[in-house]
Amino acid sequence: MSPSGASGAALDAADPLARYRDRFVGAPGVGAYLDGNSLGRPLTASVERIGAFLTDEWGGRLIRGWDEGWLDLPLSIGDELGRVALGAAPGQVAIGDSTTVLLYKLVRAALDARPGRTEIVIDRDNFPTDRYVVEGIAADRGLTIRWVETKPDEGVTPELLELGPDTALILFSSVAYRSGWIADVPAVTALAHAAGALAVWDLSHSTGVVPTQLDAWGVDLATGCGYKYLNGGPGAPAFLYVRRELQGALRQPIQGWLGSAAPFEMGQGYTAAAGIRGMLSGTPPIVGMLAMRDMIALIDEVGLDAVRAKSVALTEYAIGLCDELLPEARLASPRDSVRRGGHITIDHPRFAELMPLLWERGVIPDFRRPDGIRLGLSPLSTSFAEVELAIRTIRELL
Amino acid sequence: MSPSGASGAALDAADPLARYRDRFVGAPGVGAYLDGNSLGRPLTASVERIGAFLTDEWGGRLIRGWDEGWLDLPLSIGDELGRVALGAAPGQVAIGDSTTVLLYKLVRAALDARPGRTEIVIDRDNFPTDRYVVEGIAADRGLTIRWVETKPDEGVTPELLELGPDTALILFSSVAYRSGWIADVPAVTALAHAAGALAVWDLSHSTGVVPTQLDAWGVDLATGCGYKYLNGGPGAPAFLYVRRELQGALRQPIQGWLGSAAPFEMGQGYTAAAGIRGMLSGTPPIVGMLAMRDMIALIDEVGLDAVRAKSVALTEYAIGLCDELLPEARLASPRDSVRRGGHITIDHPRFAELMPLLWERGVIPDFRRPDGIRLGLSPLSTSFAEVELAIRTIRELL
Repeated sequence: MSPSGASGAALDAADPLARYRDRFVGAPGVGAYLDGNSLGRPLTASVERIGAFLTDEWGGRLIRGWDEGWLDLPLSIGDELGRVALGAAPGQVAIGDSTTVLLYKLVRAALDARPGRTEIVIDRDNFPTDRYVVEGIAADRGLTIRWVETKPDEGVTPELLELGPDTALILFSSVAYRSGWIADVPAVTALAHAAGALAVWDLSHSTGVVPTQLDAWGVDLATGCGYKYLNGGPGAPAFLYVRRELQGALRQPIQGWLGSAAPFEMGQGYTAAAGIRGMLSGTPPIVGMLAMRDMIALIDEVGLDAVRAKSVALTEYAIGLCDELLPEARLASPRDSVRRGGHITIDHPRFAELMPLLWERGVIPDFRRPDGIRLGLSPLSTSFAEVELAIRTIRELL
Repeated sequence: MSPSGASGAALDAADPLARYRDRFVGAPGVGAYLDGNSLGRPLTASVERIGAFLTDEWGGRLIRGWDEGWLDLPLSIGDELGRVALGAAPGQVAIGDSTTVLLYKLVRAALDARPGRTEIVIDRDNFPTDRYVVEGIAADRGLTIRWVETKPDEGVTPELLELGPDTALILFSSVAYRSGWIADVPAVTALAHAAGALAVWDLSHSTGVVPTQLDAWGVDLATGCGYKYLNGGPGAPAFLYVRRELQGALRQPIQGWLGSAAPFEMGQGYTAAAGIRGMLSGTPPIVGMLAMRDMIALIDEVGLDAVRAKSVALTEYAIGLCDELLPEARLASPRDSVRRGGHITIDHPRFAELMPLLWERGVIPDFRRPDGIRLGLSPLSTSFAEVELAIRTIRELL
């Protein structure tokens, strides 16, 4: 029983979204999967769809498939993602590459759009790949990185920013990968714009679980992961957003045939395709994006606000249980649900040694060094009973 | 009947490799699929394997899959590919990204390894993405491109090269995408080395069909496509080769967490992983590489020399039939089988208008502007009867 007196099972019985859990493939022996923010579970529909795709489309249509729809998928799925989860009007989102490669393209493009500015602003607690991409580009170009030091268990906040006439761009995560802190994206973006800089956002840990309004918030550039809350499968392609007004002026550095204005002309001299297509480089990974489309459709069916409501209830319940059952652990995530994303992290010096024991018992959270257990609660595939089982198992093992 | 008097059916009856055709998924209504060099057909084993992967591994093992083998796949499949098809000892090949992104990484890395040199040498007939990548990088860095003009229906040859002390790198295709010309890779590479330059090869149209010895030939860097003769499926990841001696000195520009020395430490400051893993950037596209592994295993079972022997027989048969039945068409590929890869192109002013009619009849070659029909004969999935049907259908339609 939780502090409120409700068991996980009782909360599940009252949960209007509980029935969607049956849409996902089951995992034998797994009692609690709490890592949906690292790798979302497959939808049964996706397994069927990919199987049919392999046989009927790849196998049956063969090369004709490109003309018959595959070539449009990066943009059509991008548009759907924009509408359902990003607050982005059509023509601004595309699927492709990995988050890392897309970050590289966006940071390079942003720098070229702010010539003469020599500083990139990013936080020390940003996800490693974001930091590594920026470090590589800064070293190449002799640029300065201004490191923002965030408060413990938080993320970037407007008062931490010192931007100036040298700032070319900022790069932050909309939801911090460890603490789950939800950044005030419009306020931080407005500060960047006031300094004449561009705002690049990594949406990996928010997309599909935290309502987002990129157009309304004035975001310039963004990218995010396809296999977390978008359930695209291990190594599924990422997505990127380029604000429409910027598309004509921005140039991305990896010029490939699928981003050219006339790929099948095979002509001399690269001319970028107009619009968001010009951000593509090589041949789009079709199989990898099919499962994302199914999850986007499911989020659309449920509604992102309802997903978010369950997400808040799941993290609230988890925090209450941790307070009650794991008083020796430290919550490393915001208590204020307005600033808390879809996952929470709890720290304890013995958590590293607990991880293999938890896996043995079919309880699968994530682990983030040095001593954090991260509970990633994907609202459509995670039950309250799983949260209860996981925290009670941690209690027993401690 | 062909000039030699043999029908396609008779040649199939005598073909020791004919039985492997049953391993591939059938395409209802397709009488002749001659575009295996653009998109190879799926193996039935791959459809089954991917279905099982989605349910049992992604769905069943969930995040544990990374620890249980997924993380090794880019390098273990790379090693297999190296052994079976590239003549590369282990530790030099990795799977990931797209050919375009890998070309970008390799060209950038090669330039950094030849500081002060200002010239990139590439041919006008190279595949568009190769040229576009180089054009973008050259524009960024103020470098010169020396364009090699190849002879009609050929590809790069040693006597066309003018290399000098400014040449940083050469980038050519081992098999030309239109003519099918097989370059003399060791001779051209030796010229690059004699000038102090690095040799980068695009192996997209040779890998899996033309025997290749990257180690023995002294190749420095190479990349190639995973969905042509490696049958990885639409948009499957590409592969790259970095010669072992160069790995310590080369730095690739897209620094991501999966190419770092300790991805799960999530620490400050990027340090590249030792060896070929340091060429990776983002999370590897796992589903996309599974089908490649099956095709590599099949090539291993058959033996690449046997695959090549059938490939030569198929193109020889196609040329003979074209000579006999399509005298008004022009062969735009080498007649000498030593210099001819797995596909041939025939040109005729009316071929563009024929393409939709061919598709209607279930005959699916490729088309390359301005007026070339390209016959891509993937030896393990293409029969002699398909070749005969295609050329007789073109005859009828002309």
